[in-house]
Amino acid sequence: MHNQTNKNDLLIEKYQYTRNLTLQIVEPLEIEDFGIQTMVDVSPPKWHLAHTTWFFEEFVLMDHKPGYSYNLEGARKLFNSYYETLNKPFPRSKRGLISRPTVREVLDYRSAVDEEIIGLFNKGDELDEKLYSLILLGIHHEQQHQELLMTDIKYNFSINPLRPSYKESLHDASRNSTVSTLKWDHFNGGITSIGTNNQDFSFDNEQPAHKHFLYPFAIANRPATNGEYLEFIEDNGYTNAVNWLSDGWETVLREKWSTPLYWENIDGIWYEFTLSGLKPLEKNQPVSHISFYEADAFARWSGYRLPTEQEWEHAFQDIPVEGKLLENLLFNEKYESDKTTFGTVWEWTSSPYTRYPQSARSEGALGEYNAKFMSNQMVLRGGSSATPRNHIRATYRNFFQPDKRWQFSGLRLAKEER
Amino acid sequence: MHNQTNKNDLLIEKYQYTRNLTLQIVEPLEIEDFGIQTMVDVSPPKWHLAHTTWFFEEFVLMDHKPGYSYNLEGARKLFNSYYETLNKPFPRSKRGLISRPTVREVLDYRSAVDEEIIGLFNKGDELDEKLYSLILLGIHHEQQHQELLMTDIKYNFSINPLRPSYKESLHDASRNSTVSTLKWDHFNGGITSIGTNNQDFSFDNEQPAHKHFLYPFAIANRPATNGEYLEFIEDNGYTNAVNWLSDGWETVLREKWSTPLYWENIDGIWYEFTLSGLKPLEKNQPVSHISFYEADAFARWSGYRLPTEQEWEHAFQDIPVEGKLLENLLFNEKYESDKTTFGTVWEWTSSPYTRYPQSARSEGALGEYNAKFMSNQMVLRGGSSATPRNHIRATYRNFFQPDKRWQFSGLRLAKEER
Amino acid sequence: MHNQTNKNDLLIEKYQYTRNLTLQIVEPLEIEDFGIQTMVDVSPPKWHLAHTTWFFEEFVLMDHKPGYSYNLEGARKLFNSYYETLNKPFPRSKRGLISRPTVREVLDYRSAVDEEIIGLFNKGDELDEKLYSLILLGIHHEQQHQELLMTDIKYNFSINPLRPSYKESLHDASRNSTVSTLKWDHFNGGITSIGTNNQDFSFDNEQPAHKHFLYPFAIANRPATNGEYLEFIEDNGYTNAVNWLSDGWETVLREKWSTPLYWENIDGIWYEFTLSGLKPLEKNQPVSHISFYEADAFARWSGYRLPTEQEWEHAFQDIPVEGKLLENLLFNEKYESDKTTFGTVWEWTSSPYTRYPQSARSEGALGEYNAKFMSNQMVLRGGSSATPRNHIRATYRNFFQPDKRWQFSGLRLAKEER
Amino acid sequence: MHNQTNKNDLLIEKYQYTRNLTLQIVEPLEIEDFGIQTMVDVSPPKWHLAHTTWFFEEFVLMDHKPGYSYNLEGARKLFNSYYETLNKPFPRSKRGLISRPTVREVLDYRSAVDEEIIGLFNKGDELDEKLYSLILLGIHHEQQHQELLMTDIKYNFSINPLRPSYKESLHDASRNSTVSTLKWDHFNGGITSIGTNNQDFSFDNEQPAHKHFLYPFAIANRPATNGEYLEFIEDNGYTNAVNWLSDGWETVLREKWSTPLYWENIDGIWYEFTLSGLKPLEKNQPVSHISFYEADAFARWSGYRLPTEQEWEHAFQDIPVEGKLLENLLFNEKYESDKTTFGTVWEWTSSPYTRYPQSARSEGALGEYNAKFMSNQMVLRGGSSATPRNHIRATYRNFFQPDKRWQFSGLRLAKEER
Repeated sequence: MHNQTNKNDLLIEKYQYTRNLTLQIVEPLEIEDFGIQTMVDVSPPKWHLAHTTWFFEEFVLMDHKPGYSYNLEGARKLFNSYYETLNKPFPRSKRGLISRPTVREVLDYRSAVDEEIIGLFNKGDELDEKLYSLILLGIHHEQQHQELLMTDIKYNFSINPLRPSYKESLHDASRNSTVSTLKWDHFNGGITSIGTNNQDFSFDNEQPAHKHFLYPFAIANRPATNGEYLEFIEDNGYTNAVNWLSDGWETVLREKWSTPLYWENIDGIWYEFTLSGLKPLEKNQPVSHISFYEADAFARWSGYRLPTEQEWEHAFQDIPVEGKLLENLLFNEKYESDKTTFGTVWEWTSSPYTRYPQSARSEGALGEYNAKFMSNQMVLRGGSSATPRNHIRATYRNFFQPDKRWQFSGLRLAKEER
Repeated sequence: MHNQTNKNDLLIEKYQYTRNLTLQIVEPLEIEDFGIQTMVDVSPPKWHLAHTTWFFEEFVLMDHKPGYSYNLEGARKLFNSYYETLNKPFPRSKRGLISRPTVREVLDYRSAVDEEIIGLFNKGDELDEKLYSLILLGIHHEQQHQELLMTDIKYNFSINPLRPSYKESLHDASRNSTVSTLKWDHFNGGITSIGTNNQDFSFDNEQPAHKHFLYPFAIANRPATNGEYLEFIEDNGYTNAVNWLSDGWETVLREKWSTPLYWENIDGIWYEFTLSGLKPLEKNQPVSHISFYEADAFARWSGYRLPTEQEWEHAFQDIPVEGKLLENLLFNEKYESDKTTFGTVWEWTSSPYTRYPQSARSEGALGEYNAKFMSNQMVLRGGSSATPRNHIRATYRNFFQPDKRWQFSGLRLAKEER
Repeated sequence: MHNQTNKNDLLIEKYQYTRNLTLQIVEPLEIEDFGIQTMVDVSPPKWHLAHTTWFFEEFVLMDHKPGYSYNLEGARKLFNSYYETLNKPFPRSKRGLISRPTVREVLDYRSAVDEEIIGLFNKGDELDEKLYSLILLGIHHEQQHQELLMTDIKYNFSINPLRPSYKESLHDASRNSTVSTLKWDHFNGGITSIGTNNQDFSFDNEQPAHKHFLYPFAIANRPATNGEYLEFIEDNGYTNAVNWLSDGWETVLREKWSTPLYWENIDGIWYEFTLSGLKPLEKNQPVSHISFYEADAFARWSGYRLPTEQEWEHAFQDIPVEGKLLENLLFNEKYESDKTTFGTVWEWTSSPYTRYPQSARSEGALGEYNAKFMSNQMVLRGGSSATPRNHIRATYRNFFQPDKRWQFSGLRLAKEER
Repeated sequence: MHNQTNKNDLLIEKYQYTRNLTLQIVEPLEIEDFGIQTMVDVSPPKWHLAHTTWFFEEFVLMDHKPGYSYNLEGARKLFNSYYETLNKPFPRSKRGLISRPTVREVLDYRSAVDEEIIGLFNKGDELDEKLYSLILLGIHHEQQHQELLMTDIKYNFSINPLRPSYKESLHDASRNSTVSTLKWDHFNGGITSIGTNNQDFSFDNEQPAHKHFLYPFAIANRPATNGEYLEFIEDNGYTNAVNWLSDGWETVLREKWSTPLYWENIDGIWYEFTLSGLKPLEKNQPVSHISFYEADAFARWSGYRLPTEQEWEHAFQDIPVEGKLLENLLFNEKYESDKTTFGTVWEWTSSPYTRYPQSARSEGALGEYNAKFMSNQMVLRGGSSATPRNHIRATYRNFFQPDKRWQFSGLRLAKEER
């Protein structure tokens, strides 16, 4: 019982920290910045603010607060994302076409829902298990949208020929640091345990812990760098079909790709668009904003390959959760390390995103949370500089279509040991 | 000289009236409303505010104010519309993706340019002829954008499931008025004069006055009404190919058209989306927001036809410029009349938009003003309830592609007399 | 009565000549050539053979031969072209996907219908007026498809990297002839008569003869040549927006046009794909296979303009119907002339294709023949080297969308006299 | 040595059998049927005939026959499929637009290459290992195209409203047979061996044999039937989003799917288009021509799931290669069995098509054979009634994008044992 109160206290603290962090992310924005959606994959910041709030309203308040009614009833369908079992979602591609409700109204909506959620705790009783889990899920859901807020703001700004800067001080002086020589960590393989039965929190797609057979392999001690990727480009990496998967090659031709998403060559000098505007490319930093196809092509060109997600997880299972994460990005925290770490860039693996053996399926709308995306996507591991620190772990599975590039996505090389 | 001062005074008065009217149009908008572009044909209100200002800057200040430099230099290319001879315009379809400069910055830009323009007058000298004409052109150009502001705001709001209202009091109670029985005005034809050599102001596409041979014809004393159009719908007008031009029929099938743009049938009752939200359809009002294809199909179904633009102009050459125009819409001015009038809806003619005989071509960027659009567009005549009163005249030629419907566009029937 | 028999005899002679000429056109083809459709605008040769036959079956035999039933009942809907009032036509874009009925079956179908049509004459009676007109219309309809057969075969072959030759001897040695200096024919204008009330045969879109007011103008004595068009290209004609209509410029950018359809530059030498394969470009020949947009841009660049269709007709009303026409192309007939002539290339005019004043509308399916295409198309005049000699006349109106290039289409310059 | 001769004799026998079987497949076609390509996924039969021949020419004769030059030099690039490292392939989507070379010329090309290949054997020497493997690969490659010939002919015919029949006698009377009740075969799991190191022949994507950990599972003793699938349809299977993967649901909505590819409901009775034309649906036959998305949705609706490819292979490793295969289809051989068999329909598994652990990559153009397709495709197992009997085996991996339906593709249910 005392224990329970502690558990509740920790939850409410986590709730308030997370809700507040979202507001800190949007703090540098102008009202006009909240509404734009510059491609179908991104959502307007206003939508993220409202949708994460709607999630608490729909799945927590409606079911667990007797007599509760929707705060912005009319706007409700606008903030559903993809839950087909609830009322039909508003088309994703049109989120940037909606000027009302205003930013002010959405911020008020957030406050109103926060007040209600906090009210649930204040009764002094312990929360029942179901309610506890739903709020915890809502927090982790909002953390996912914190990362999307950062990547979407970056993409939205990159389209504007004025090249707005999100926050000048974000430019990390440490980017000029030297990079360690690539070294290989070796693993013997055999039967290993993948996934988790975590009692605290993990997503359905990480469960359950299960056995998996691995052959011996080695994995790089750090992600591939901009400098290494530049060698690939200069060796005609983007124009030689032999490096590419067939779908990747088609994408390169169709999209006219010749560099990572935000690279630009101006008068022979390489630049990269960042959250602080256009900056000279730093060769020692991990390459970022590449698609799976590019990661795979680079690895093939290198003579190596991408790790499977199981190899990656096996290699990281004892690595502490430290590295360049959202808090560093936001608050200019410094992080220096020669050790293998989480963060900086998500790392594409060679594993399509599929169901784990022995896993169960959640029922109802939340059953749509992860499982229904298990086709045509690839797993990424490790978190990025836009991932909140207490959101990431070794078993965490991120996933995107293989042609997506607007996330902070890079790669780490692997190879077989025969 | 005294005369000249008067001419200048009138011009500056017209300039200030027009610039101010634009601000009155956007007065009811929230900041969020200024940025959205809900289809490629519309532009964000912010863009209209900036573009009309850019026009004065580019064509008046840069050429006639020594030492002038662009006020928002970086943003300059964002507000060019289609002048290929100037610096490459920003893609039209992406105008809604630009959050900076902000609304505040654009309003400041307007003020700064206004100050400069007014400064040109204050020197006490007479303006040279060229400068005078350019400012006058800029005023008429802004008037065109006033109409587009109204139609674009209406379209932008219609997409939002919350169906925002632009201005409640816009709903004109007089819409319930009775409608006169359709009567025919008869004309004998022969050689007539079309177009104008107007000394005061007319667009290049109205010039010069020229002879045209007309056969005897008759034209309706008022536009076709919602009630009449409803009969067409109820007689399977939209599902019988025989009513339609081939391109029109393809459009009907592809776009799944079955009513004018803003009509909706809810539980058997007809409604129309208006600038004041969704309202019951008023049968005695002119049908509006139809394409040329629909106007043409309705006319064919009626057993009549659309007038040519020459027939229309011949019939209207002695009609005073009165009717429901922008000022009525904006300030809820009342206008009641049984006479043939301008305004309420633009009227599609059967005439493709082409060059007049004997016309000259303007040189330079302004040569692109009208002539380069002379393909695949149809002429509309008469002005609408969103047209400023001193912008319209009997010789005025408006033009749109035959499938466009977001303008206040209707029709007036005509027939041959044999 | 004797007279009538003569009229019938002439008709049957014309019928047999025309039906036979179609077979001569396809004589050089392999069976495989009959089925392909290499873009949506062209139709497979097999389809042309069947469709022209279906026309006689549908509009003549079904209505005027008691007890007649369709010869290829199942295939009937495949050969309807666009008559929506009849049974729904098979999608135009899929005509090349249909392997059955075979070429043999279609040729048998032609023979069977020929036998029936000829049988109508053999009864010795005079044909009633309606029947006579329908057969005559069918003949002129088939002549239109003879031209399309030539242009479609040419386009189909041009796609094949093997560059097949339709008929080697088609290459006209006379193409090396010199070209006359451009001269202007002058006309005074005033009220003229346009169109025809022809008793013999004319299409509905040429009727009726009507008055039209013309200003004084001049027109070139010959079409513009490849050599002249090459100067336009070399003067950056295709990369300077100022030459182009707005829609034309968009088309140039989208389609990446930089020359007429069949031109190719190989190692600095210009070639043109012809019905006899790839041949060196002949500078003295009329430029061909250009769109209206290109014709208009070339004319503007030249400092002149295209003629209106009324100017063209006025200038040609007393010119004899002679020139390079289908029979020359097919049978290598020679034609040499310094006079203004018909044939060689269709000439784009500046006139959108619209209804003539005072014209009536045909009823029923044949009412769809021409009128329903009166939007977004431009008029061409004069016939080409693929037009049958007795199909063309001064009042004849051909029409295509302004971006089409696979017809033998060129231009003749005009200018105003002030 | 004697042994070697036998090996050569067996190879040449296999070569001739295979090349001849291809000709038997196209024997019922008209010349017109050889050229059509009714969607981008299918190829014209003529192309299959030429491409399989080109494969022998390019990879065997050019490299192993001194002085050999291409038989149809000009046409060479037309018959390359996707080998980017060789000369640029002709666009896949345009294969149906090529009328030359003719069918006759392609058949002559086949004969000429056959003569050359057979000539390689007649020297009495043993073939070197490399040459032997390439010919064997060419044979297996041609077998793959035999299946595609059948599925492409079926699709091509299905588009034609005349619904041609490929071969009347193909209709298998045994289809009216009863179906066994679904039974489950149980497996204990543990470490199993997947893939093969086959000395005789296997594709690179099946290699090498490797360890894989399996949990206990059960698999159905037969594929799901039309009757069972009909229950899914009647239970609103296609309109309930909860059954579907997200990408699958989007596909259902976009493509308006409501049944398997060839099903049709005419006046309340279900039919299926077959190689013998439209036939009443047989409920006891395996459901066929469904996409992975449909197979997955059906399995989820059933309360089960699809097997992984490893489960499938484990279950089939001791099953003899018997069942309804191409020879049955072609020669109306009867096959009746209650046992678990290969053939009839390919079975979608839940496994994305990826690289096997420890596998090597082939070098050169043949390195493109399979590996470059390892993204966005799903594995199918077991062969169909269009698969040649000596082409299929338990380790064989077929793969298609999850939305493809024109193959003979169905499913077999599986479930976990906990």
